[in-house]
Amino acid sequence: MLEELKRRVYEANMELYKRNLVVYTFGNASGIDRERGIVAIKPSGVDYTALSPERIVLVDLKGTQVEGDLNPSSDTKTHCRLYREWKEIGGIVHTHSRYATAWAQAKRTLPCLGTTHADYFYGEVPCTEVIGDRAIEKDYEEETGVQIVNAFAGIDYRFVKAALVACHGPFVWGADAAEAVYLSVMLEEVAMTGFFTALLDPKSTGIKQSLLDKHYLRKHGKESYYGQSKES
Amino acid sequence: MLEELKRRVYEANMELYKRNLVVYTFGNASGIDRERGIVAIKPSGVDYTALSPERIVLVDLKGTQVEGDLNPSSDTKTHCRLYREWKEIGGIVHTHSRYATAWAQAKRTLPCLGTTHADYFYGEVPCTEVIGDRAIEKDYEEETGVQIVNAFAGIDYRFVKAALVACHGPFVWGADAAEAVYLSVMLEEVAMTGFFTALLDPKSTGIKQSLLDKHYLRKHGKESYYGQSKES
Amino acid sequence: MLEELKRRVYEANMELYKRNLVVYTFGNASGIDRERGIVAIKPSGVDYTALSPERIVLVDLKGTQVEGDLNPSSDTKTHCRLYREWKEIGGIVHTHSRYATAWAQAKRTLPCLGTTHADYFYGEVPCTEVIGDRAIEKDYEEETGVQIVNAFAGIDYRFVKAALVACHGPFVWGADAAEAVYLSVMLEEVAMTGFFTALLDPKSTGIKQSLLDKHYLRKHGKESYYGQSKES
Amino acid sequence: MLEELKRRVYEANMELYKRNLVVYTFGNASGIDRERGIVAIKPSGVDYTALSPERIVLVDLKGTQVEGDLNPSSDTKTHCRLYREWKEIGGIVHTHSRYATAWAQAKRTLPCLGTTHADYFYGEVPCTEVIGDRAIEKDYEEETGVQIVNAFAGIDYRFVKAALVACHGPFVWGADAAEAVYLSVMLEEVAMTGFFTALLDPKSTGIKQSLLDKHYLRKHGKESYYGQSKES
Repeated sequence: MLEELKRRVYEANMELYKRNLVVYTFGNASGIDRERGIVAIKPSGVDYTALSPERIVLVDLKGTQVEGDLNPSSDTKTHCRLYREWKEIGGIVHTHSRYATAWAQAKRTLPCLGTTHADYFYGEVPCTEVIGDRAIEKDYEEETGVQIVNAFAGIDYRFVKAALVACHGPFVWGADAAEAVYLSVMLEEVAMTGFFTALLDPKSTGIKQSLLDKHYLRKHGKESYYGQSKES
Repeated sequence: MLEELKRRVYEANMELYKRNLVVYTFGNASGIDRERGIVAIKPSGVDYTALSPERIVLVDLKGTQVEGDLNPSSDTKTHCRLYREWKEIGGIVHTHSRYATAWAQAKRTLPCLGTTHADYFYGEVPCTEVIGDRAIEKDYEEETGVQIVNAFAGIDYRFVKAALVACHGPFVWGADAAEAVYLSVMLEEVAMTGFFTALLDPKSTGIKQSLLDKHYLRKHGKESYYGQSKES
Repeated sequence: MLEELKRRVYEANMELYKRNLVVYTFGNASGIDRERGIVAIKPSGVDYTALSPERIVLVDLKGTQVEGDLNPSSDTKTHCRLYREWKEIGGIVHTHSRYATAWAQAKRTLPCLGTTHADYFYGEVPCTEVIGDRAIEKDYEEETGVQIVNAFAGIDYRFVKAALVACHGPFVWGADAAEAVYLSVMLEEVAMTGFFTALLDPKSTGIKQSLLDKHYLRKHGKESYYGQSKES
Repeated sequence: MLEELKRRVYEANMELYKRNLVVYTFGNASGIDRERGIVAIKPSGVDYTALSPERIVLVDLKGTQVEGDLNPSSDTKTHCRLYREWKEIGGIVHTHSRYATAWAQAKRTLPCLGTTHADYFYGEVPCTEVIGDRAIEKDYEEETGVQIVNAFAGIDYRFVKAALVACHGPFVWGADAAEAVYLSVMLEEVAMTGFFTALLDPKSTGIKQSLLDKHYLRKHGKESYYGQSKES
């Protein structure tokens, strides 16, 4: 069932591979059918070159498998937690993309250092706290989702669609799996440029609010004027 | 109309893509027909893989669209401002190329750290002031052009054909769109090598004037002897 | 003889080349037939584009050549020493991959800075002592193996399947040549991300034990739940 | 005339391009016929994609053109000076390869930081003095050759076949153009790894003499045992 969703989740996973954000079996993309409460996700530990729409696994919102011969991604519970917490997201991506992961490993929030960042993320991309020992023991992947949600106290997940999980790597979301992939590419792009910027200007804390507003809002929101909205 | 100009602007945009200076819809190249006062520019938010000569948009020197089904680049007014200010340029390119953008985000002028830089840019590539709040509110893209022009007080735009817009990224120009693309590649090259140099030698301020003169003038100007001038 | 082993060692070497871990004739992969005590290894100084299964050289566990027209890799004795010391390994890879080599040249152990590292290596990847002058004179390649084994005092080679040889580069091992190649790719990945992390957070010493345990053990050991174990 | 030499010089130039050491018209490779005292070199400012064996230019040892429709490389006099000074070299390459150029721009000698460097260069790769104003005025390209030779006081050019020209970039030489290209690739490789090493370990000054001797001499000299010497 849900052939169309599985096909789109498959394509999102393959785009991760083509965009060089993953090696071998790293990373995973998922998408949700909100009406049925079913999540389609990459199988665990399968090489991208061996992936097909049929191998995409279906789980319910608690992470229980409902279709597929293969085990779902080991990060499935993190995805499901985010889908349950945040009703307006339709796709999630997790990668170990190099520069975003470096910021996460340094346990540093990624500041908004330029207009490219502002075009896609409305402010800094938060880094979570390091997960506690009890949370690791209890239910590690579920609790990783909790950490992400906690990092968004005071931040609207609809305007900053990415988080850095401390010591781990990025999670990114969007309206569907394709948008989550697209924003994963952008996150890596700004994490890379931000890394270079941090070395050239170690004290940099980010651009001013007026410039952030201008760039984010000319692309998003009611008065946006970027792109071809008349087409859509 | 202006089929030849549109074709050349299309090709310049595609060269940006092939040279890996842009991802997805980033960046834009334009060219001008000085006689008619018409600028050809990339449409806004269109993926390079979906571009064609027919989709290139025509605007007048104030940025008003005169042909094309798609909206012009959101940076159109910046291009037009530069074309109005600087009569001897025929093409402009804007990218978020990684190393040039890092210098811009660090709000640092790119010093001339070696002869490769001197071969193409006659001295440091200036970084603008951060744009003021009133300018952002008034007419952001137009005022970005003003910032660039202001950064060239005391610098001849015909010998240094690039600027770093603070917190944003590079703008590069030339005799036509093709030259602006070519110099965008060179700017990224020297921004990259300059980044490595800055890490190996943080106090470096640049090469001496006599070496800058030698390299720039052996390639450009009346007594140049680089290349195959007898061919042209 | 041992056509199948030679074919698999050939393929492992070619994977090094495809994964961009080697240039020209750098690096080498080997595999062992434990029953016969025969090691198959890349010939010395042969370009990857000129390699074939037939050109793979066979040596005994002392490094004496038993088959092949070409000389074996100059690192053969290092491989043989490791095979003799560590009975549970079936494949070894040596490269000069860039980031792992940089850590080795800096004579720095690679700390476990994130969960990607923890997924593949159970703790820091040790860096050997700089080899002594007498050991260089006596039997350099053999003694390089000794240095590696010495660096594993207190570390189990079955859980950390890689070493950095000071001033030199990485050696990696596994159940067979293919696993050693796979882990070489992973080592380069975490050495790269670790390099970026070290620049963003110079005081970082690595993730906590509970997180290391969680990630390593969910992929390896009796209670692992990553991947498709039911398939194998 | 000298069709074979021109073909080999053409191929050496194309290898620079394939190995990503040059962009557009950067760089040049030359080779010499010692008997006739004729040097074959890339034409000036010609794109690699437009190169052919017929377009390779012939000059005598003073740099005077003796064959070819195109002007020779603007660096021709530097090549000729080195051929006149150092009788045992048969090929020369100049590039602006990124990491080697960064060291040159930082005016820093490249120390021998690891065994990969020691495999190909017998000690540090020297960086010249910054060229004097009078030398620039007098005969810039010729004097660049003089700078390189001066940097080799106390260093044997037959064992360290590369120099960094301060504020400029690398020159590399060898038995023929092909070896000079090969060593240019290796120089870039060790300049890159050396750059990473310098950031991880800023005080590093290089490996000890015994290790340098071991690696250089196992590949070169009378008692070398690397590779397939019995084949040649």
